[in-house]
Amino acid sequence: MQGINFDFNNMFSFNVGPRHGVTYLELSRMSAAIDKAHRHLSSIIKNDHNRVSLGLEWVNLSFQDRKTVNKIQLLGREISRKFKNIIFLGIGGSFLGLKAAQDALLAPYYNEFSAQREGHPKIYFEGNNLDPDTLAALMRNLDPAKTFVVVISKSGETTETKAAFKIVEEWLKKGAGKNYGRQIIAITDPQSGSLRRYAQEKQKKDVLSFRSLPLLKGVGGRFSELNIGLLHLAIVGVNIREVLDGAKAMYKRCSRPGIFKNPAYMYAALQNILYRKKGKTIAIIMPFSETLKSTADWYVQLLAESLGKKYGRRIRVSSDGRETWEQDPGRIVNTGRTPVSARGTNDLHSIQQNNIEGRNDKTVTFIKVQNFQADIKIPGDDDVLGGRKLSELMHLAQEATAWALVISSRPNCTVIMPQVTPFCWGQLLFFFEMATAFEGELLNVNAFDQPGVESYKNYMYYKLGKPGLNAGIAHSIKSHPLRKKKKLII
Amino acid sequence: MQGINFDFNNMFSFNVGPRHGVTYLELSRMSAAIDKAHRHLSSIIKNDHNRVSLGLEWVNLSFQDRKTVNKIQLLGREISRKFKNIIFLGIGGSFLGLKAAQDALLAPYYNEFSAQREGHPKIYFEGNNLDPDTLAALMRNLDPAKTFVVVISKSGETTETKAAFKIVEEWLKKGAGKNYGRQIIAITDPQSGSLRRYAQEKQKKDVLSFRSLPLLKGVGGRFSELNIGLLHLAIVGVNIREVLDGAKAMYKRCSRPGIFKNPAYMYAALQNILYRKKGKTIAIIMPFSETLKSTADWYVQLLAESLGKKYGRRIRVSSDGRETWEQDPGRIVNTGRTPVSARGTNDLHSIQQNNIEGRNDKTVTFIKVQNFQADIKIPGDDDVLGGRKLSELMHLAQEATAWALVISSRPNCTVIMPQVTPFCWGQLLFFFEMATAFEGELLNVNAFDQPGVESYKNYMYYKLGKPGLNAGIAHSIKSHPLRKKKKLII
Repeated sequence: MQGINFDFNNMFSFNVGPRHGVTYLELSRMSAAIDKAHRHLSSIIKNDHNRVSLGLEWVNLSFQDRKTVNKIQLLGREISRKFKNIIFLGIGGSFLGLKAAQDALLAPYYNEFSAQREGHPKIYFEGNNLDPDTLAALMRNLDPAKTFVVVISKSGETTETKAAFKIVEEWLKKGAGKNYGRQIIAITDPQSGSLRRYAQEKQKKDVLSFRSLPLLKGVGGRFSELNIGLLHLAIVGVNIREVLDGAKAMYKRCSRPGIFKNPAYMYAALQNILYRKKGKTIAIIMPFSETLKSTADWYVQLLAESLGKKYGRRIRVSSDGRETWEQDPGRIVNTGRTPVSARGTNDLHSIQQNNIEGRNDKTVTFIKVQNFQADIKIPGDDDVLGGRKLSELMHLAQEATAWALVISSRPNCTVIMPQVTPFCWGQLLFFFEMATAFEGELLNVNAFDQPGVESYKNYMYYKLGKPGLNAGIAHSIKSHPLRKKKKLII
Repeated sequence: MQGINFDFNNMFSFNVGPRHGVTYLELSRMSAAIDKAHRHLSSIIKNDHNRVSLGLEWVNLSFQDRKTVNKIQLLGREISRKFKNIIFLGIGGSFLGLKAAQDALLAPYYNEFSAQREGHPKIYFEGNNLDPDTLAALMRNLDPAKTFVVVISKSGETTETKAAFKIVEEWLKKGAGKNYGRQIIAITDPQSGSLRRYAQEKQKKDVLSFRSLPLLKGVGGRFSELNIGLLHLAIVGVNIREVLDGAKAMYKRCSRPGIFKNPAYMYAALQNILYRKKGKTIAIIMPFSETLKSTADWYVQLLAESLGKKYGRRIRVSSDGRETWEQDPGRIVNTGRTPVSARGTNDLHSIQQNNIEGRNDKTVTFIKVQNFQADIKIPGDDDVLGGRKLSELMHLAQEATAWALVISSRPNCTVIMPQVTPFCWGQLLFFFEMATAFEGELLNVNAFDQPGVESYKNYMYYKLGKPGLNAGIAHSIKSHPLRKKKKLII
């Protein structure tokens, strides 16, 4: 089984100079912090209570039992056989992982050509934007009787997904007859939440209606692809087991204490040094592969929500070993690297100029694919391109880009992926997840919450007149109106 | 005719505080610099020679004569009638503008459903990546006899586009018969370059083969949509005139000297102050519209390539008024704001956490669409969402996001677009183009070149053994090998 590797030569001073690269001294000075972070992370992972309550249950997703996985694989096959179209409703972590899998693991132009789908249904992602235009177009063109809907939301209260679900449910009800509920599956909290309650009510009347799968406890949205994404994989015919095996293989490598044997720790430690000591505040993630662009988008959420934090973390451990984290009001950090997703070679003709000549405040992380699914030889022999394979040029372009960054003293590193297979992709996801968790430890922030997204939601709820809203929220909104000066719109 | 407006209230200290917002004093202190920039820009635009030689001919694209425009509109209609599929080959500015138009101005799911296309052909964009997988899939599934190819490259030497063109040409030749050349149009330099020469040769044998349209002198790739993109607009049935009229209307507003009457100048001046004085080095561009995401991607190239510069600019004016610019070796600036494209409401569940709580080093530019093409009412009356329109929630979400940024002292501004029509979209493009040109003036860099993208290209050419390569380049590559330490791959 092939594994992915991490090449970090160009993060070091011997390649990009001491002002912009990591020195061995800097790395060795971090060893105590790295040890501490490792011990803390391992202790949480080993403790069943803490792992779930602190939001690290995702580390165990590759160990899901065979029965569960087989059940989902069969369910997917059944849906795939019966329906022509599947609409997945979800946003954030309930969208980005599925989209990443769709683009990485399926044939390009999957929806476009039936030959590319190999008998599987067309896949649509909606409920990830309140923009009415796309959903309206989709409902106008699909036959509800031939369409299956998967709605993904932990609480059932996410505005985008809830709104889209109500609309799509009504459309199904009108177009698919009285058993329309059999064309719906909800992936949601196993016990609580409005979507769970709704599904349970509907199931009472018809057990085949509104079936559901659990969004596991202790698995946050952005770490949930190997939980909520499995049904999608099964429907499009990906072997779930291979993806989970990939994650498991990476889990083993990413549990090792020494950073020179642990690619996730090494990635996190180097990025952390460059962030704190050399001003590398921007993280460019640049797969040299068209089909991995959505995986880069998935990583953008992972990094932005996990590390972009106002407050440091305060840890409390009770006498029975139960651990809780809270925001440390005395430590306002406003920290986090800002991620930017790009793709090679496409974006060499867009952001490369700024990456090479602009502010030296970035690291670039390449993902290099060694073997593509297809390859094409360029015809003719009249110049340097004739007779070459596209894959050869692709590899050369990646090497050339790394070289151009290095001679401009710009740190960069490369995740090397033998091929974009389910196994390797599972590894890739787990690598980034563990690296992000480890970066959170090194920054001493809570990498598993997202308190900053509450403010705009509260504002919306307040304006919509949602009952039961906290009085403090209402007061804060009333006392901070948006001030407009007359002339400041032109 | 409706116009777009620019709301910049939240860029100011009275809303986000003096540490992170612009004060009136700071703005008024810039008035001499703004005047100077305006006078310089206007003088170039008025001088036919300088406008072309310095790369500002794009300002005049909206004044293209009626005959040219009609010819392209008719040509597009002819191609549209005769062919089922069009492949556009191009990268960077020869791709991003077309893709932006495709997503903004056509119905969502255009390729997916024939009803959405209203009789127009399917559109594919290739030649924008060396990744072999997508091109291979496309050629396997399209009928070459029913496919038209438009290849866009100024020099004809862009590796991605050239490689893809050779491959697609061979595929057409095999599948479409001896007159396959009639299914090709080249948009390229009117006089020079390998693509122009090739088209001319082919035309000698058959005048209907390899027809061509000119990529005008003085129009750089990232400023060229209203030149090279017109055939695409014509093929998909957009009225070119409306787009150009939009650009023209904005040209008039963006030629005014006073910044309080000139939205592009105001945008540039405020961003420039926040960049230089308040450390706002990251530019988030966030349309609240699914269909404008590609327009945000187009702006990413525009900003990154125009302002991301190592050297300041040195201006020389000869006695006859001819102006030249060169890099000022004494002024290494490594400047430029790093652009990030996002979309609301989707990315509220991705990057918003970091925008609100992470480092306060960003400005957010919203694009707000007032009227969507479609709208949907959410069924039911059981909670705050029932009975609301999606568009209403979309507007509220944008307002809520701006509010959340403001209470966290994060500067932001909003481009208000009445509707995503060809006219308004033409305005939007010109607004950003002029704003970028003006920011270049304020930074005193050459906003119309891209010297930083040469280094990786040279490395590629060197490794490919391209003849006639500059000896200095070869020397520089040989003397700066990428150093690898054995242990630094795990």
